[in-house]
Amino acid sequence: MQNDYNHWDALTILTLCERWKEDKTKTTQISDQTNGMASPQVRSPELRKDSVTKRWVIFSPARAKRPSDFKSKSPTTQSQQQQECPFCLGHEHECAPEIFRVPPSSGLPWKIRVIENLYSALSRTLDDPFAQNHNPNSSGSVGQVLGGFGFHDVVIETPVHSVQLSDLSPQEVGEVLLAYKKRIQQLATHDAIKYVQVFKNYGASAGASMSHSHSQILALPVVPPTVSTRLDSAKEFFHETGKCSLCEVRVEDLLIDESSHFISIAPFAASFPFEIWIIPRHHSSHFHELDGAKAVDLGSLLKLMLRKVSFQLNNPPFNFMIHTSPLQVPNSQLPHIHWFLQIVPQLTGIGGFELGTGCYINPVFPEDAAKVLREVHIPE
Amino acid sequence: MQNDYNHWDALTILTLCERWKEDKTKTTQISDQTNGMASPQVRSPELRKDSVTKRWVIFSPARAKRPSDFKSKSPTTQSQQQQECPFCLGHEHECAPEIFRVPPSSGLPWKIRVIENLYSALSRTLDDPFAQNHNPNSSGSVGQVLGGFGFHDVVIETPVHSVQLSDLSPQEVGEVLLAYKKRIQQLATHDAIKYVQVFKNYGASAGASMSHSHSQILALPVVPPTVSTRLDSAKEFFHETGKCSLCEVRVEDLLIDESSHFISIAPFAASFPFEIWIIPRHHSSHFHELDGAKAVDLGSLLKLMLRKVSFQLNNPPFNFMIHTSPLQVPNSQLPHIHWFLQIVPQLTGIGGFELGTGCYINPVFPEDAAKVLREVHIPE
Repeated sequence: MQNDYNHWDALTILTLCERWKEDKTKTTQISDQTNGMASPQVRSPELRKDSVTKRWVIFSPARAKRPSDFKSKSPTTQSQQQQECPFCLGHEHECAPEIFRVPPSSGLPWKIRVIENLYSALSRTLDDPFAQNHNPNSSGSVGQVLGGFGFHDVVIETPVHSVQLSDLSPQEVGEVLLAYKKRIQQLATHDAIKYVQVFKNYGASAGASMSHSHSQILALPVVPPTVSTRLDSAKEFFHETGKCSLCEVRVEDLLIDESSHFISIAPFAASFPFEIWIIPRHHSSHFHELDGAKAVDLGSLLKLMLRKVSFQLNNPPFNFMIHTSPLQVPNSQLPHIHWFLQIVPQLTGIGGFELGTGCYINPVFPEDAAKVLREVHIPE
Repeated sequence: MQNDYNHWDALTILTLCERWKEDKTKTTQISDQTNGMASPQVRSPELRKDSVTKRWVIFSPARAKRPSDFKSKSPTTQSQQQQECPFCLGHEHECAPEIFRVPPSSGLPWKIRVIENLYSALSRTLDDPFAQNHNPNSSGSVGQVLGGFGFHDVVIETPVHSVQLSDLSPQEVGEVLLAYKKRIQQLATHDAIKYVQVFKNYGASAGASMSHSHSQILALPVVPPTVSTRLDSAKEFFHETGKCSLCEVRVEDLLIDESSHFISIAPFAASFPFEIWIIPRHHSSHFHELDGAKAVDLGSLLKLMLRKVSFQLNNPPFNFMIHTSPLQVPNSQLPHIHWFLQIVPQLTGIGGFELGTGCYINPVFPEDAAKVLREVHIPE
């Protein structure tokens, strides 16, 4: 009864697809029937939203083919892992094209590389879905369809396989944050891109398929649902109070730490145990407003939070997400939206209750989590 | 770098709480500071919604204490597992109080038991949070707080440890569905209960802590966010077309199977690979309108879908959820809402992108999933 399924088990999905492909030889070409195009193994990505859940879903067959260096069952040494890792120094030719590197000079060894994702969820070569008609295609009563145009990039945070983000100096973490900023600024030049999600998955059960320290940037042709909800809530709060809800956030027993320009808190209604938000002290709508000094300051607080989580919770898998504002909306129109960075240690999972309701059950009150994280002393 | 965290790893969370408890002896009583009540280990559950995400979260310290029969690392025989399982015949005294059993006569051995959850996420003994004031307490600019009143029950689907829901006859699966119905009707008599979520977690990574076949019923004092979104979408569709979106659902290449009163489809914008919806053919707003004949018919189609998923996808962990209408709204006011049952095989997990955006990436197009599930032949 107990299965050994691994979350994001790419091989499993690939096997299912392969099994389906074998089936195909016995049957008619389903995809020819459905869209007159090539086999589904090479189908282009597509966004769909049905009229029941009103949630955009990215259909991306390419994602099933991701390898995972977490798959290995037999113990491997660090050097073995490193030899096989395309994100390591010297393996650049095994990766999808580079977008830029830090430092930019090609004469020096790189510290950070921003590259295309080899298993991109969206396609940067598709036509801009808004070029011809400004509304997504309707598919009758069923829902809406949009071509899967977008960008999916990887930020390799260090050339060294054994180094994690929290091992870097505040200055170096700041450089990673400035690499996010630079890439967002590039993506913002595309009119069809409405929102950029920066995120990091650490550990297999948090969604990482590679152990080499990296984060991801996904540029979307739609404003996703959690962002719409956040914008609506913020607008409502601003309308009622004349203030931004995150400028006004009540800290008190929820404060964990603070730096010159940022505070870190356990959010009042944290969905997950030991969830952390890092919030700019002063109003800022877009993450990419970050300047060099604030990047180092944020790097310092982010490093501290990741080290505390790792030490207190025994190096758990985690995700972090940067919650920013939609692109192409000027700051002057966003007095109500305040960007923040959310860290979620993956200690609990998603079951039928969460899937069904969108509510979460959190066994740890945030003021208790804040106290633990505030007081933990990390050995030097 | 790779961790062996298990989703819903109750012991991990408990360990964190225990570590925190040890810390407490060295420090001040945080919970006394925060709410003047007893230690957080016995704190009552609470619902909170912040003004940023607008999502209700249930804070429930009791949930951290759940045991799990999936924890065992060493192989155990069926009889060993059974000896330790409180859901098995003869172990009734190890469970929380029984609500009812099927058949009701105490002279016969039971086939189904509906019991209280020993690790209830909500408290049935708290005061009705709406008894004195009809609005949730506001907590300043931070968000809203509501006492954690509610019900959390378990439906033990069979007295036999080795039997799974899909092993039962269509008639017996129908009896489980009618047990859900009966319990929902009982819960609907409480004015404070706004919505009832019925769900099943199968397998540890789908959130089950017990392998003995069971499902859960959680009765909430709020209408949860996915339900609100579904209601709004349905209202919008009805306003535009004069029709219910699920009465009008376009089946075509998305159809998997059908019975006299139900169809099973891969939804047009499935969030997950091989996701299935079972939908009543004729308009029905509340699951608990189900009659005896339709229960057996649904039992037959549900059993077929679960067997197909198990055979085709190699017995994966899965969840199913019944998406119904809020209680206390009469059918006459709900021409736009149509209940359905959603089955989600757990083949992929949740990463930073999904947490951040609320969008999902699905590597399998639903028309491909439908074809596979339509054509798979289950050996007799």
